[in-house]
Amino acid sequence: MKKLLLPALLLTPLLSLAQADLVKHVNPLVGTAKMGHTYPGATVPFGMVQLSPDTDTIPYAVDGKYNKDVYKYCAGYQYDDKTIVGFSHTHFSGTGHSDLGDFLIAPTTGRLQLNPGTEDRPESGYRSAFSHKNEVAEPAYYKVKLDDHNITAELTATNRVGMHQYTFPKSDEAHIILDLMSGIYNYDGKNVWTFVRVENDTLITGYRQTNGWARTRTVYFAMAFNKPFYQYGNKNYDEEQVYKGFWRKFDQTKNFPEFAAKKLRAYFDFKTEEGEKIKVKFALSPISTEGALANMRAEIPHWDFEQVKQQGQAQWNKELNKVVVSAEKDDLVNFYTALYHAFLGPTTYMDVDGKYRGLDMNVHQAKGFTNYTSFSLWDTYRALHPLFNIVQPKRNADMVKSMLAHYDQSVHKMLPVWSHHANENWCMIGYHSVPVIADAVMKGNTNFDANRALEACVTTARNNYYDGLSYYMEMGYVPEDKNGSSVSKTLEYAYDDWCIAQMAKKLNRQDIYEEFIKRSQNYKNVYDAKSGYMRPRLSDGSWKKEFDPLDTHGQGFIEGNSWNYSLYVPHDPAQMVAMMGGKRRFAQHLDSLFTMELPGRYFENTEDISRDGIIGNYVHGNEPSHHVAYLYNWTDQPWKTQERTRMVLKAMYKPTVDGLGGNDDFGQMSAWYVFSALGFYPVAPGSEHYAIGSPAVKSASINLENGKTFVIDVKNQKDRNVYVQRIELNGKDINRSYITHSEIMDGGRLTFHMGSKPNKKLMAVAP
Amino acid sequence: MKKLLLPALLLTPLLSLAQADLVKHVNPLVGTAKMGHTYPGATVPFGMVQLSPDTDTIPYAVDGKYNKDVYKYCAGYQYDDKTIVGFSHTHFSGTGHSDLGDFLIAPTTGRLQLNPGTEDRPESGYRSAFSHKNEVAEPAYYKVKLDDHNITAELTATNRVGMHQYTFPKSDEAHIILDLMSGIYNYDGKNVWTFVRVENDTLITGYRQTNGWARTRTVYFAMAFNKPFYQYGNKNYDEEQVYKGFWRKFDQTKNFPEFAAKKLRAYFDFKTEEGEKIKVKFALSPISTEGALANMRAEIPHWDFEQVKQQGQAQWNKELNKVVVSAEKDDLVNFYTALYHAFLGPTTYMDVDGKYRGLDMNVHQAKGFTNYTSFSLWDTYRALHPLFNIVQPKRNADMVKSMLAHYDQSVHKMLPVWSHHANENWCMIGYHSVPVIADAVMKGNTNFDANRALEACVTTARNNYYDGLSYYMEMGYVPEDKNGSSVSKTLEYAYDDWCIAQMAKKLNRQDIYEEFIKRSQNYKNVYDAKSGYMRPRLSDGSWKKEFDPLDTHGQGFIEGNSWNYSLYVPHDPAQMVAMMGGKRRFAQHLDSLFTMELPGRYFENTEDISRDGIIGNYVHGNEPSHHVAYLYNWTDQPWKTQERTRMVLKAMYKPTVDGLGGNDDFGQMSAWYVFSALGFYPVAPGSEHYAIGSPAVKSASINLENGKTFVIDVKNQKDRNVYVQRIELNGKDINRSYITHSEIMDGGRLTFHMGSKPNKKLMAVAP
Repeated sequence: MKKLLLPALLLTPLLSLAQADLVKHVNPLVGTAKMGHTYPGATVPFGMVQLSPDTDTIPYAVDGKYNKDVYKYCAGYQYDDKTIVGFSHTHFSGTGHSDLGDFLIAPTTGRLQLNPGTEDRPESGYRSAFSHKNEVAEPAYYKVKLDDHNITAELTATNRVGMHQYTFPKSDEAHIILDLMSGIYNYDGKNVWTFVRVENDTLITGYRQTNGWARTRTVYFAMAFNKPFYQYGNKNYDEEQVYKGFWRKFDQTKNFPEFAAKKLRAYFDFKTEEGEKIKVKFALSPISTEGALANMRAEIPHWDFEQVKQQGQAQWNKELNKVVVSAEKDDLVNFYTALYHAFLGPTTYMDVDGKYRGLDMNVHQAKGFTNYTSFSLWDTYRALHPLFNIVQPKRNADMVKSMLAHYDQSVHKMLPVWSHHANENWCMIGYHSVPVIADAVMKGNTNFDANRALEACVTTARNNYYDGLSYYMEMGYVPEDKNGSSVSKTLEYAYDDWCIAQMAKKLNRQDIYEEFIKRSQNYKNVYDAKSGYMRPRLSDGSWKKEFDPLDTHGQGFIEGNSWNYSLYVPHDPAQMVAMMGGKRRFAQHLDSLFTMELPGRYFENTEDISRDGIIGNYVHGNEPSHHVAYLYNWTDQPWKTQERTRMVLKAMYKPTVDGLGGNDDFGQMSAWYVFSALGFYPVAPGSEHYAIGSPAVKSASINLENGKTFVIDVKNQKDRNVYVQRIELNGKDINRSYITHSEIMDGGRLTFHMGSKPNKKLMAVAP
Repeated sequence: MKKLLLPALLLTPLLSLAQADLVKHVNPLVGTAKMGHTYPGATVPFGMVQLSPDTDTIPYAVDGKYNKDVYKYCAGYQYDDKTIVGFSHTHFSGTGHSDLGDFLIAPTTGRLQLNPGTEDRPESGYRSAFSHKNEVAEPAYYKVKLDDHNITAELTATNRVGMHQYTFPKSDEAHIILDLMSGIYNYDGKNVWTFVRVENDTLITGYRQTNGWARTRTVYFAMAFNKPFYQYGNKNYDEEQVYKGFWRKFDQTKNFPEFAAKKLRAYFDFKTEEGEKIKVKFALSPISTEGALANMRAEIPHWDFEQVKQQGQAQWNKELNKVVVSAEKDDLVNFYTALYHAFLGPTTYMDVDGKYRGLDMNVHQAKGFTNYTSFSLWDTYRALHPLFNIVQPKRNADMVKSMLAHYDQSVHKMLPVWSHHANENWCMIGYHSVPVIADAVMKGNTNFDANRALEACVTTARNNYYDGLSYYMEMGYVPEDKNGSSVSKTLEYAYDDWCIAQMAKKLNRQDIYEEFIKRSQNYKNVYDAKSGYMRPRLSDGSWKKEFDPLDTHGQGFIEGNSWNYSLYVPHDPAQMVAMMGGKRRFAQHLDSLFTMELPGRYFENTEDISRDGIIGNYVHGNEPSHHVAYLYNWTDQPWKTQERTRMVLKAMYKPTVDGLGGNDDFGQMSAWYVFSALGFYPVAPGSEHYAIGSPAVKSASINLENGKTFVIDVKNQKDRNVYVQRIELNGKDINRSYITHSEIMDGGRLTFHMGSKPNKKLMAVAP
């Protein structure tokens, strides 16, 4: 009888975990128009395979020159396009530079055409026109009708295996094309080598090796059909091939089971009945074709497409149930689509047996952890990894282990900067593995050797040939005449150094603490008190003369201007506020940021920033501003943080295909949404503190891996009630502008009382 | 006391095994002038590393067109050249097509020059003039003075590691150049990718991936110095490189430890004292840089150059002592140089831990055998593998296991044709793994699954898309209008098929026996009784009209003419003799072969055949004739075999740099010498019989792995005493023209009594 007395409230989260169908709120098409750079295809949480339609074949470079138009196609798909080229197996989500698009498959009927054709004339190639009315995009499931071929294509995936299901019309000329030349950010010469074996009439293996963003990358595959093809062939498009050797004794183009060259397209021919389904399982491996085959056998040992789809969606439900919110319909879509995007990466990078390729190109065994890759760290250290420390702590610790493995394999003795597929691509600046590691250490999520991690951070931060770092160490700033984007680098190094100091302190390494806490003050060396901005400085100590704090070009900043970057001292906002004239003046300064009218010429030609992502001169579409709306908490006007964050939530996130105000950046934009919608944000990862904003949900249960639940309860939630009147933590009023990580992880209840007017007395105390 | 009574004669072989210094008779320079295609550098028996000087940089193709002059450089070295470019780590011995030349190292002094320069003006690049008076070539040791740089270079090797010792003058500008673009049969585009890491100031790792004779080949390396370099750098010669990515943030050319591109040269700088030795250990691996490092640590865990050299020469002595001969000085050099060349390949192809790369590009573990590669089978099935069945039976069984592993990994389900470095290069014709396997099976050297081997042979021989084989199976011959070199193919398939039949019979597979013994008679289908020659036939059954039995081009033959190939029925010489008019007429026919004056136009443009290798129209420089001199044994004039073989031994093998009458073909030419000098030859591998010729040595002890010794004793040996008067086997006269494999393997004594005139009564009985 006692059991029946359990309060219903306590049961709810358990039931939710088991039952809440949250997948239905996710719209993978959000961000596929304009510059969101998301992909609509099928993948499982943190999955190795991202099986998704590509809608164009635009090259990265033409005649050796960068082709600006390629930028739209970072994820392979643009919603406004009229045709689908095919379905490839690897995609980044939301990145601002790109690669991948491996192994494009196109099912066709009629005359065999091995070239993709053009968007204007899709009938001139294997691509097909399609209509969004025949398109379904769900987590782990994508469906579309290929009009030109009268084929319904369905895609689903497990971690390492993509599964295709193509419903054909009756046809004596049914083809499955495997385009080994196709790729994202492709250019002539990107394909270094491809190697293919037709093992039998239902199994193909091989690999593709490319020289792109990842300089030296090889992806292995195994491809299985549920029905034997009756003939097959390939075409070698390498016109420059000098040496053919004794292979010329064969006609390698048709029914010859082994082909290898730089530029290959292959086809497999079938005869189909009306409505006949041809299915393809396509497994990847970073190691070998043997590894790909083992992955396929382990993950999809059958041909039941529906079962794979259901398992994939169950996996998504499990992950999405980590945060169960109630909210308005649109906000639900915004929230769960954001959570979905946040859980797309970093991606699994090892075979089912734990083998992965290391940065040294050797094969390594992941012992006791899942190896992850695709660390877009300049973006994701800010909110994504802190989010993981709450809702994915085990995975986040494994990500740190993956970074430490990278460090061990790095000939530079450096932690990842931007790494993917056994490569460091060096994109962006800073050494932002450090805040990811520091955040985990400071929050006690250290299922890894923290001392070894500290050593890796310190060694990384002392590298004397990395990106102006020797000047920084010697002079206290990066001089613009020696190394461009010098102010951005100085500011980010200073913050990263503060993270090292925090860790060192916690781990009782006073020597390291002192070295790096000193370095963390270097942001002061680029603050020009006279102009009131962070400003590029030259090696003789003088300020760079030409200076426009709004300009984004050649001013000493990267993906931002001085105006934005001058607010970047996340580890010491109070001191920054003081430096910039005190709380009152700083609040006014912030006000002008959000309200100024920015002349059109600014940001016009800045990649990764579109006008859609800008409010005044506040650039939400790019990361250096992500903490900025929370800075009012360090003035006497924290209610403006509440107002601004709600405004940004509304303006920058919509449940529509063009709903993202900028590149999602592998989940960072989405993680900002998730945090801010819940009412708090990690301004300085590496600290325990979350700055309080204004929640957009009605309530939320964060179901923690430790079994506890942290509930966010929002009283009087309305669109116009953006102002926090009162906050209770576990029933007691708190009068501060932050909560701590421990308070969340202990479980409990955070109650926001909302109103339409600021309570200006509340929360004067910043951390 | 009894021990002292042991006859001294019995002790001799044992003492020889332990003590005979046979290395001194070997001259690795033999065959390095003209077309021997041997290399003079350092290697151990069947070693993975062949560390040898390359004397030119001639490309395989210029502007996409084949460059005939490259042919001289199959082994990288031409004796007449005046300069040495550098020392690379992989070389084929004697092949008639080429590849390899991986990782060329050049030590220099003075101004750093990264281009190799030209032979005319060696000072324009890193290469150096040299003089043969400063050159020493011994088994496992090579030494030369590089005049331009005043450096003495010494090379030695273990199985998987090359060791360099460079004695420098005093210099502030001492360089070691690592040229990753250099290679044999190189062409622009052959380098698919190279990847290099400078792990620390004495260790470099990386790999080179090429698209050449081996279509998809990667060699990994680890390179260690005995002294730290003080600076280093590299140059990327790829002018077409479109994508540089974010690596451009670094100056990668100097002291940057990670470089990867298609065309790279690297350098390492030292300051040296007068006479200072800079040593390099350079390990290879087919698997990974990790594998290369492990090979280095296992095989040379020190810096003692002399010790490595002595161990290498001890290994050679051990192998050479398997046949201890007494002979005239020149003949000793001929003999041991031939035995040395015979033991250069196939080469080891696995790491010290038994891992090797398979034909499927996956990593495999060799369980209980050494994996070998570089099977020049069209050549080596004839005499080299039969020689191994006598003096290297363990290795030969491992070679068969390596072939079976190749078969298991082959997507074509075919045994090797010409394979090297995890690739089938398809060079030449036939499926001559079959006679190698059959010879081992028939001779009882079957430390492998003979039934599985038979199955592999049968499956190979039934492949329906290989080189005219479907026509052959259907029509009993390859029709010239369907597939070129049709007569050569028909004849060789027929012989290979006979080998399968022999195995099948021994293994009680009557069905297979019947199928293949029938196929083995197909040689009759291309014999044109009217002309008396093997002749190309068309698919309508008619003989090709235009026909010149002496021409080597477009006549249905490969590397030979009809005259030569018409004698190619090794499995049925008696029937062939009958078919061609009987013993008397056939002997006359053979006589004319050796004595005719061949018009100059013939063989002029036939690659792999030089006029040096021709006696009359007898082409010893190429393999299809290798059994021909022994065919007199099937006539009534076996004494002419004795005369002719002695003539060929004299004419075609000399202890000089130009001493080989043609490409050594990975030991086949040399194996012919070894057999013929011992007085017998395997006319039909796959049978137990050796045709008796005329020994050129005074005596020989073949020290068998089974512990027994087979002694060849030649009475009255003189240059002019080429005729066998009488033969005793273990003291009893034998009156036949052959001995059997069992007779050899049982140990014993074969005594030849020689004279200056034929004993025409002797040995009328052919097998």
